[in-house]
Amino acid sequence: MEIKAYAANEAKGPFEPFSYDAGKLGSDEVAVAVEHCGICHSDLSMLNNDWGRTSYPFVGGHEGVGTIIWKGSAVKHLQLGQKVGVGWFAGSCMHCRECMSGHHNRCGRAEETIVGRHGAFASHVVCKSEWAIPLPASLDASKVGPLFCGGLTVFNPFIQNDIKPTQRVGVVGIGGLGHLALQFGKAWGCEVTAFSSSPDKGDEAKKLGAHKVVNSRDPDAVSKIEGTLDMVLVTINVGLDWQTYVNALRPGGVLHFVGAAPQAEFVPFQLIAGAKSISGSPLGSPATAGDMLEFCARHAIAPVTEHFKMSEINEAFEHLESGKARYRIVLDQDLN
Amino acid sequence: MEIKAYAANEAKGPFEPFSYDAGKLGSDEVAVAVEHCGICHSDLSMLNNDWGRTSYPFVGGHEGVGTIIWKGSAVKHLQLGQKVGVGWFAGSCMHCRECMSGHHNRCGRAEETIVGRHGAFASHVVCKSEWAIPLPASLDASKVGPLFCGGLTVFNPFIQNDIKPTQRVGVVGIGGLGHLALQFGKAWGCEVTAFSSSPDKGDEAKKLGAHKVVNSRDPDAVSKIEGTLDMVLVTINVGLDWQTYVNALRPGGVLHFVGAAPQAEFVPFQLIAGAKSISGSPLGSPATAGDMLEFCARHAIAPVTEHFKMSEINEAFEHLESGKARYRIVLDQDLN
Repeated sequence: MEIKAYAANEAKGPFEPFSYDAGKLGSDEVAVAVEHCGICHSDLSMLNNDWGRTSYPFVGGHEGVGTIIWKGSAVKHLQLGQKVGVGWFAGSCMHCRECMSGHHNRCGRAEETIVGRHGAFASHVVCKSEWAIPLPASLDASKVGPLFCGGLTVFNPFIQNDIKPTQRVGVVGIGGLGHLALQFGKAWGCEVTAFSSSPDKGDEAKKLGAHKVVNSRDPDAVSKIEGTLDMVLVTINVGLDWQTYVNALRPGGVLHFVGAAPQAEFVPFQLIAGAKSISGSPLGSPATAGDMLEFCARHAIAPVTEHFKMSEINEAFEHLESGKARYRIVLDQDLN
Repeated sequence: MEIKAYAANEAKGPFEPFSYDAGKLGSDEVAVAVEHCGICHSDLSMLNNDWGRTSYPFVGGHEGVGTIIWKGSAVKHLQLGQKVGVGWFAGSCMHCRECMSGHHNRCGRAEETIVGRHGAFASHVVCKSEWAIPLPASLDASKVGPLFCGGLTVFNPFIQNDIKPTQRVGVVGIGGLGHLALQFGKAWGCEVTAFSSSPDKGDEAKKLGAHKVVNSRDPDAVSKIEGTLDMVLVTINVGLDWQTYVNALRPGGVLHFVGAAPQAEFVPFQLIAGAKSISGSPLGSPATAGDMLEFCARHAIAPVTEHFKMSEINEAFEHLESGKARYRIVLDQDLN
């Protein structure tokens, strides 16, 4: 199968028209005609080879939404013409203990959509069928792309930490991930506190679901809510005074990282005294992704998106780098 | 009530005969005639005022076992003559959210048996009735004292982290706490790995329940079991290369501290990649203490003890400080 795409030929390089032959597809794979694809901050990290994991030509895009136009002979549960989303993962081994326990996102041999293979800034993207997640009919396909990486990343901590609607949740960083976490927390039934370093985001945070807004960089403000939160979900990748945030937890509470913040310090006694924990998680499983989509449909949760044509991919990345995206950029297909 | 005791009059000072009037006891309190009392490392920390929380004269002792000889008018669930144990806590408020949720050990107003009050290196110790934990008849009262602090501290993490018998547990430090954790882990049905810096403790660790023994200070040895453990329970209060231990966890695993190890570093990405966590806990609740005693009776779990007379308290503390106690010292009453 011949696939048209946009690829960068070097770190930080511009995306340019590119095409490649996807070769013979596997019996457990599907090919998806991409209609929309979100841009995630990790597309930028991969473009720039920040993690030393990028190969060039690099085709990013791991928040793709589209229609199945081909499926392998072993794929029985998906149909041609069905709408699906493809996120960070494009395959799991399906047989290890993690996969067999429903934790396909923890599979040691999981394939990542844009690592060592080509992503969804393209006419088509290929993945193994378990990671092609069917869209509920009531969701707007043009907006949901960001759910498949950003959304799943912040939905999963509610599942993993067994958060109850009676509990109180904080969200640090009101951006692409955080603006979805606020919506999830509100619909989950929780009291939601937004932590942001941008005071001007306060009103927006409240519209998205926050009951309270706290300046994330003001330790005095964070100290004032000592002992009140059951989960603080950290979506940023910069360092803050995390000990103040551990103090903000109620007994039994958890400081949960989904953003790769820098190495930091912890004080065992601080965790011991209040039976607290510090944790993290990588996206979520396909089953959790399905539950997330159903939850979004039920509660009218959607990413707040800005749209560019796929041919405007370089302008879109400039907008992302400017830090002004509110809150998630989606590329709409015009390659075909 | 006049109580005979041993008290230190200054930090690091020797214990000397001492007596005090317990005054009028509360309607929700009981007085316990102490028959045996374990010595915990935190008695030594308090004696030395390591935590700046000690007042003198200081009467330590928070692993007391004995007989109820007086109870307040509101105490209906305990009987005169009943055998009970009294541990680190001597009272909880009974009305805050934590107490009302069964987490009396997380109560912000909990009284600690040897902080601002006198402990069980004495003829009698007084506590509020909720923390006088009844002994099952089949347990040997002379040996169980150490369960009420050391034992409960390492039993609670199995409850708090919802450890399953199919899982694999590591125990760092094979001393007063660790030797009980090994027994709990074995009886829990888990595979148990002992981490010790003393190679000569290997055979003993296996007798206590360990299936495997790893040198805790050899990062290469710890690296060899990468990705294999569901919980690593840290009972020591010194620093180790904790990142190697996080690597030793399976996806979803937890590095759990009950010893006040020094401040250390964590890498958020390391937690994110494997959905791992770092946590801690303070002892356990009265309900958990009761479950622990029943579990000990069912599985013939007991502390390995060395005995001194209570009048030999200073010799007993010297033995504790020498680091040679195997594994827990108990003082047998001879004050009366």
